[in-house]
Formats: sequence, structure tokens, C-alpha cells
Amino acid sequence: MRATPLLRNVTPSAALRERVRRPGYFSKLAKPSDLAPLFKNGDYIGWSGFTGVGYPKQVPTAIADHVESNNLQANPETKKKFNLFVGASVGPEVEDRWAALDMIARRYPHQVGKEVSKGINAGRIEFADKHLSMFPQDLTYGYYSLKKSPASHSHPHKPLDWAVVEATAITEDGGIVPGASVGATPEIVQSADKIIIEVNTRIPNLEGLHDINQSFVPPHRQPYLITHPSDRIGLTSIPVDPDRVVAIIESTAPDNTGPNAPETPESRAIASHLIQFLSDEVSAGRLPKNLLPLQSGIGNVANSIIGGLAEGPFDQVQVWTEVLQDTFMRFFETGKLEFATATSIRFSPEGFDHFFKNWETYKDRLLLRSQQVANSPELIRRLGVIAMNTPLEVDIYGHANSTCALGSRMLNGLGGSADFLRNAKLSIMHTPSTRPTKTDPTGISCIVPFASHIDQTEHDLDVVVTEQGLADLRGLSPRERAPVIIEKCAHPDYKDLLREYYDRSLHECLKRGAGHEPHMLRNAFKLYTNMLEHGTMKIKAWDP
Amino acid sequence: MRATPLLRNVTPSAALRERVRRPGYFSKLAKPSDLAPLFKNGDYIGWSGFTGVGYPKQVPTAIADHVESNNLQANPETKKKFNLFVGASVGPEVEDRWAALDMIARRYPHQVGKEVSKGINAGRIEFADKHLSMFPQDLTYGYYSLKKSPASHSHPHKPLDWAVVEATAITEDGGIVPGASVGATPEIVQSADKIIIEVNTRIPNLEGLHDINQSFVPPHRQPYLITHPSDRIGLTSIPVDPDRVVAIIESTAPDNTGPNAPETPESRAIASHLIQFLSDEVSAGRLPKNLLPLQSGIGNVANSIIGGLAEGPFDQVQVWTEVLQDTFMRFFETGKLEFATATSIRFSPEGFDHFFKNWETYKDRLLLRSQQVANSPELIRRLGVIAMNTPLEVDIYGHANSTCALGSRMLNGLGGSADFLRNAKLSIMHTPSTRPTKTDPTGISCIVPFASHIDQTEHDLDVVVTEQGLADLRGLSPRERAPVIIEKCAHPDYKDLLREYYDRSLHECLKRGAGHEPHMLRNAFKLYTNMLEHGTMKIKAWDP
Repeated sequence: MRATPLLRNVTPSAALRERVRRPGYFSKLAKPSDLAPLFKNGDYIGWSGFTGVGYPKQVPTAIADHVESNNLQANPETKKKFNLFVGASVGPEVEDRWAALDMIARRYPHQVGKEVSKGINAGRIEFADKHLSMFPQDLTYGYYSLKKSPASHSHPHKPLDWAVVEATAITEDGGIVPGASVGATPEIVQSADKIIIEVNTRIPNLEGLHDINQSFVPPHRQPYLITHPSDRIGLTSIPVDPDRVVAIIESTAPDNTGPNAPETPESRAIASHLIQFLSDEVSAGRLPKNLLPLQSGIGNVANSIIGGLAEGPFDQVQVWTEVLQDTFMRFFETGKLEFATATSIRFSPEGFDHFFKNWETYKDRLLLRSQQVANSPELIRRLGVIAMNTPLEVDIYGHANSTCALGSRMLNGLGGSADFLRNAKLSIMHTPSTRPTKTDPTGISCIVPFASHIDQTEHDLDVVVTEQGLADLRGLSPRERAPVIIEKCAHPDYKDLLREYYDRSLHECLKRGAGHEPHMLRNAFKLYTNMLEHGTMKIKAWDP
Repeated sequence: MRATPLLRNVTPSAALRERVRRPGYFSKLAKPSDLAPLFKNGDYIGWSGFTGVGYPKQVPTAIADHVESNNLQANPETKKKFNLFVGASVGPEVEDRWAALDMIARRYPHQVGKEVSKGINAGRIEFADKHLSMFPQDLTYGYYSLKKSPASHSHPHKPLDWAVVEATAITEDGGIVPGASVGATPEIVQSADKIIIEVNTRIPNLEGLHDINQSFVPPHRQPYLITHPSDRIGLTSIPVDPDRVVAIIESTAPDNTGPNAPETPESRAIASHLIQFLSDEVSAGRLPKNLLPLQSGIGNVANSIIGGLAEGPFDQVQVWTEVLQDTFMRFFETGKLEFATATSIRFSPEGFDHFFKNWETYKDRLLLRSQQVANSPELIRRLGVIAMNTPLEVDIYGHANSTCALGSRMLNGLGGSADFLRNAKLSIMHTPSTRPTKTDPTGISCIVPFASHIDQTEHDLDVVVTEQGLADLRGLSPRERAPVIIEKCAHPDYKDLLREYYDRSLHECLKRGAGHEPHMLRNAFKLYTNMLEHGTMKIKAWDP
């Protein structure tokens, strides 16, 4: 028998009555502050949310309030630290606050927030980044709950104790209509012993925007019958076992997104190289006139690319991506973007206002899917996606670091970069050629001899582009790639250093019959050790 | 108009008449020595073949004879070097001979042979390894022929000038029934201007063994409608445009395979750890009783695993793999293996004898598919394959090197390892914990601080196993992985060194708030530089 929490009765608002079409749920209407004490130290918790939208706001805040006001973290006996699983990042007011209160023992598979990454890099939070397409399936396989003690829970086989998820409506059969992201919510709901639903009545009811397919595990998995970004294979809501819904909450808090990253001259230069390259591919007959479905990441380069395409030479463009930013609305409005699908819409607050006001224009040209589908290798490869992502650094042979500065300091995590880059028809990484340090405006070269951490291998990149130029690596051997990457992409401040590294490595390695991918291992990380000691990668010489 | 070569008339043998069911082809019957001079310096050539079976023997040999007997390589004016594309490796008597004669300018995407790897590492052969599932599609995209001058060829849009492929029969419509491998042959045939077919009358007609689907390019690609290893989606032969067939040849040369790698006490210990792990997964309910489809590589550990499974606790086992070795026949004969599919059968000569004699027993329990399908992320993920492969080395955080010794010297190439490891339900790497050097029987540790080359990332491995033990990495953060890998997998000779590397790295990185994946970059490659200088990885101390 499940222990039923004793909850105070709450009267539903008119707005909530309109959104919740399953009357039985109203008896479960609760106050967040009554739910907060039920969360026990060590609990496994899943939240909805992806790229800071569609996450629960009330219950996480109430748990933080409960911990803070009762000073629970001061004492090892009362301390509460949780294992937290979310499709990707959520709003800083909840996740970062939890981290600041040291309430996170473990956080998978992606995060954005100063306090969270501080906790990870200080050893307080265990974090593992995982391909976003794989995280939900690994959760359902039980790979994240191998050490969860089954005896301490009434349902020993569920990987999560709690799912706390946001909805913009509840269907007659109790299903969840998500907000502006789907992410891993279907699998989190499927994997949780107890489910709490926050129905957000401030965000419009987004019913019809989502395509929710059933997630099977092998040997019962079926093909995704999608051959075009607009193909639907599922329902408009996430199925839920109503018996596992222990509470519903009304929420009126908005998604706490900030503005999109502004374009810069550098990001415009990168976008211009890229659009030229795509035009050339069309001319050569290697891409159709309307391109192939596009994936683009978050950030100013992505903004410049999509902005450039909105005014660019391509019509009837399709988008198959992970997340949509504000510029996609401009792309729609110019009539050049025909259809877009993603797992999340991360607009700025003004962007969301515009989007909701023009809902009728957008609703038939957009679909949100689960991240297991949006980032699926099966679909990315079948559709021949053109993938564009930003790394921290790329090395001269085409390995890229997407996650760890100087090899060790985690920024945000892998995200879906490798899902897309491994499987795309065109795998493109774009980065400025340098970044500033405190003492040197070009103190960090983003083109390095040997990446200090490798998330994308040389086998996965077709094109590298910086504001300096574009290196087309397709069909090239490592010995051919290095000179091209250095010439086209490196900053002038580093070209000579990199050329010398390559030439000396080639000479030494050929001499000992080991010249396939030439390196001087003694010097491979010298730019970093110089950076750690002197605040710049500009070394004096390769060997003393 | 295509220039038709003037070929001497050849009378078909009775054996050939039986195999070739398209009479029109007999007028194209030619002698290899007449064809050899037609191959021009710089030509782009595709061969059939995969893991040393199903490759053409007569024409490549005739070209080598032609080059050698006319001493063509002595003179820059007459020298012939070719761009050679084959699904994977072929027999050493052709490929290695070409390399020894310096006839290979470029060789993609995998190779096995002393002379070929010598040429690659000496800078004479441009080589790029690529995921074997992607190589055929990249070929059809034109990614390997970006620099091929279209003006010099009559059909400017074909990526290859020549396809030279082996068949065991020709159908009425001119289609090719392959030998014991499919590999990239469908796409090579599709991509070639001129096709030469070697009909091998010594190998039995293997019609019915193959499942050949049509290969589309985006946006026209369709789902692979396979949900079980035995599902068929294609034809029993490779479709060919008969107008592009310029010659057929009779061949009676066998596939030049050697014996399979013998088991060792180490390989048996690794297999035993693995079978115990799989049994535990079944007990925990995370795998079905008959497991999920298995992939295993080539080599003695693979032999021990399959041998162990042949006597193991699992029935009705399915295999979804790249290549089958001799031990699979024993697995079939014990009745425990129900069905196997691969892209190649690499048996020993005795193994092939046994296989062909018992053809009736095997033919309905086996399917060979193209490498684009056999190694397809779509299918590996859908089926939930259990993937087992051997790296050169694994680092303490779970990155693995599959290709380049000491970061630079290419062995054979990536093969399908990353296709399987990225997408499997269980991604397993097995390796001995050490390898010998000339002066030290445990001079090389296969568990290292930072892999000298990274082909598989930390995001792709679930399990690492050596003869010392098995490390289950699922759900672990990098700081949790390192101690587990060191304790379970490292050789006692290296445990203290590795523990000290990790502890010192952790201390230093936490101090500067960068402790997610702790490293001392100045020392990360110290085991290798010591190895290069002193012939062993056993260093005296991390810092002087």
C-alpha cells in the first residue's frame, strides 16, 4: 500500500477548471508547501523541462523554501540531497537555487547555471553528461537507479521516486499536455512511482503542438515511421497512469528565459561562410535546392545563421532540431521556413508573447517531440540533417571538445551535439577562432593541437568554420586535414605555432614510422599548461 | 561515348556457364591481363570485400603483375597510384601487394596488412578511417570524390571510375550474388562508371544468403523495416546496370583467410567475467532470458566469449553483428544460437569447408546484409544490441582508443566499433590489462590516465572488462568511474600509479574549481613519453 499524504483541501480556480478535463484530479489538488516535506533525503526525482522551458516551478521552489526555512542543511541528520534527472536544463530560479542550497547529490544529463556547475566542479554534485537521445532510454533501462535501494520504496522497480512535471492542460484520460518543451517528460512520467503535475494556467494551453509517441524497450522497439519533419507518429498528450498521480498544483509562473544571445561581427562572418558553403553544395548537386532539414544550436552564431537564412537564397526550408530560438520566428515570417520540429522552444519573454499572440500562424508549422525522437540517430541519418553546433575547441585533426574547459572544468554538458554530429549528412562545427583571457584578448585559441577533452571524434566532423574561414574536411586524411584547418580556421596569432607543431610532429612521427596522425605527445597539451601558468596560450617555443 | 576496350575473346568454362544466367555477359568475358593496362594513374577504384572475404582476386593481381613486370613505378611518368575504396579489409595477397608496389595513393576506410599500414604510417598512403555504416553513404554523396576531375571522365557524376567485384553467381537480370561478404558492394557498384565482375566458380553459389536493400539518399531515405535479426527487407542479389558492366572474369581463387585467433587464459578470464555479468543482468530483469542480439568483434576474446556462450546458460540467442568467426558454427551446433546476421563471414579455410558442406543446416539461420544496414545506428539502437569490442586502451574516465598506437601510428582503423558502441543497449569494451614491450612483459598498460587517441568517448561505454575484472560504469559520474576502472580493470603493476594520478588530479582540480573530470594535463601523456624513451610505461614518479 502506498502511503497517501495528508493534504489540505484546495479549491480550484476557474482557470484551472478550464485546463483540467479529468474531474477526479481535483480531489488531488494540493499546496506545494504541503508536498515539500514528503521529499526524503536521497530521493530520485525527475522533472519536466528542457533548455529552461516547461519545467515545474512551484514544487521545487516549495522544497527549497522548506529546506531553507527549517535550516535543514546545517545538520547531517536533517540534510536533504536529491538525485535529480531532467531532460536538459531548467530555469535558474529552481535548479541553481537547489545547487546553492546544496540540495543536489546527483544531476543528469545536462545543466545550465552558475551554482550547478560550481557544485559539479567543486565535487559536491555528481554529474554525468549523456547524449540527450540516450538519457531517457537509459533511465527506463534502470541504468541510473542501479544503486537505488528497492527495499526502501513501495514500488521497487521504478527508477524514480517522483516525477514533477508541468502541464498546460490535462486531458479526459488524465494525460499531460506539456508546455513549450517535451524533452524526457514521457519517460520520466513512465519511470516514476509518484507523479505531481503543475498545471500552468498562465501559459496558454498548447494542445496540438506536441507529437508524443510511445517509448518501447528492446526487443519490442518499433521503427519511427517519419520521413519528413512534419510527419506525426503519436498523440498530442503524454499518457499517465492516473493512480500514480499523487497531487496536482496550479502554477502561474512563467518560464524564466532571458534574451537570446546577440549577434556579433564574428557570428555574422561565420554565418556568411556557412551560407556560402551551403549555396556551393546546392550548385554542385550535393544538396537539394531547399537544402535538407537543418539543426542549429543555441547562441549568437546559431542566431546569425538562422537570421542569414531568413534573408538567404533558400526557400521551403525544413528544420529538424533540438531547440528553437527567436530568430526562427523571423525565418517563418519571411516565408522561407516551411516546417520546424524540435523538442523545445526557447524563446525570450518577448518572443513567447509574440508566439502566443500569433499561435494560429504557427501551430500548423511546428511540432515538438520527445528528445528520444528529436535527437534520434535513426531520424537524423534518415533525413540527412545538416547539423551545426558550437564547440569549446577543435583540434587540427578534427576532434572537438564540447564540454570541459582545460580538460576538467564542466560547463554545461554534451547535450545533443553528438547525436546530431555523428549522424548528420553534413556535420558542421562553428566557433570563434580565439577567446579572450583576463590578460590577452586572443589568449585562448579554439584551434589546438590536441583537444583537452574529446566529445566529437575526427570521424564525425565534415566542416569546421571560424570567422577566419571554412575548412571542408570531407574525404581528407588526418595529414590533409591539419594544414587545411590551420590555414582556413586558426587565428593569425596562432597560425605559426600550429604549423610548427604539425610540421615537427610530422617529421618526428614519419621518422619512427608512425605518421598517420602526427603528434608530439610531450607537447600536445603545452598550450593549456602555458594557459594555466601564464594566462595565455601564446607559448615561446615548443621545446625549451 | 564510352571507349570500349579491345578484349580478346575468352571461352567460358562449364562451371561459369552454370553460374552466369545472363547470356549477354559472355560476350564481355575477358582476361585479367587484358584489363590491367586500362587502369590509369589516379583512377578511383572500388572493390568488393570485407574482413578479407568476398574481394576480387584476378584483376587486382593482374594490375599488380602489369605494374611490376613493366617496372612502371620506377618512373614518375609511368607510375600508377590509385585511390582505393573497399568496405573494409581484403586479402593481403592483393591489398598488401599493391601497397608494397606503392600502387595505393589513398585507401578508405579500413585495412589490414603490414605493407598497407607501413605505407600509411610512412606518409605514402592517405588513409582515413570512417564509421563503416557511413562510408558507403559518404561515397554515394560524392564526399570522397570532391577533387576528382569530372572533365577527364565520360560520366562526370560517378564517384568511382571502376568497381571490381566478386560474385558467386549472376542472375537473369545481370544482378550480382556476392560471396561471403556484402560490405559496401551495393554502393560501390552504384557509384562506379565501369564495372568488372569476377565470378568465382570455386566458392559455392551462395544465392539466398544475402539480403540486399536499395540504398537511397536523403530526402528519399526510408525506414529499415527490421525488428528482428531474421527480418528480410531486400533482394538476394545486388542490382546492376548491365550497360556499365565492361567485363566479366572467371576466378577460382579462394578467400585467403588465415586461422582464427586462438584463445588464451586471459581471453577466457575476460569471457567468464562477461558471461557472469550478462547472467546478473538477466537475473535483475534488465535483459530478457535469451539476452538481446549480440555483436562481437574479431579476435581471441571474441572467440572465448562466443565459445563460452556456446556452453553458456542462454538459449535462443540472436546475433546482430558485423562479422562471424568459426566459433559461431559451434554456437549454432549446440542449438543455443537461433539466428545470426552480419555483413561478412570470416571463417578459417577449414571453417569455410565445414560451412559449405553443411550449407543446408546454416542457410536458413543466417543473413548477410550491406554494412550500411548491418552497422546501422537505427537498427543497433532499435534492437538493443549488446556490443563487445576490443580497444588498444581505455582511460580512467571511459574514453577509448581503437586505432592509433601512441596517438599517431595507425593499426587497422575504426571499423564498426563506434557504430555499435554508441548505439548499443550495453556497450562493452574488453582488453587485456597490459601488453608486453620488447623489454617488459607488462610494459604497456591498457588502462591509462588519458587515451593517446580517442575514438569512443566517455558517453559511449557502459562496461570495461579486463582479465582482472569488470567495471560497470552505467550511471556513474567521471569521479566515480575512475576509481572503479582502476580497481577492477588495471593490472596490479599499474594500480598505484593510476590511483596516484587520479588522487593528485582530483586534489589539484578541486582546488581551482575544475574538478568534474580531474586531470594533470602536464602529466596526462607521461606514460607514453616514458614508453617512447624507456620502452615501458612504468614511470618513476608523476612529477620530478
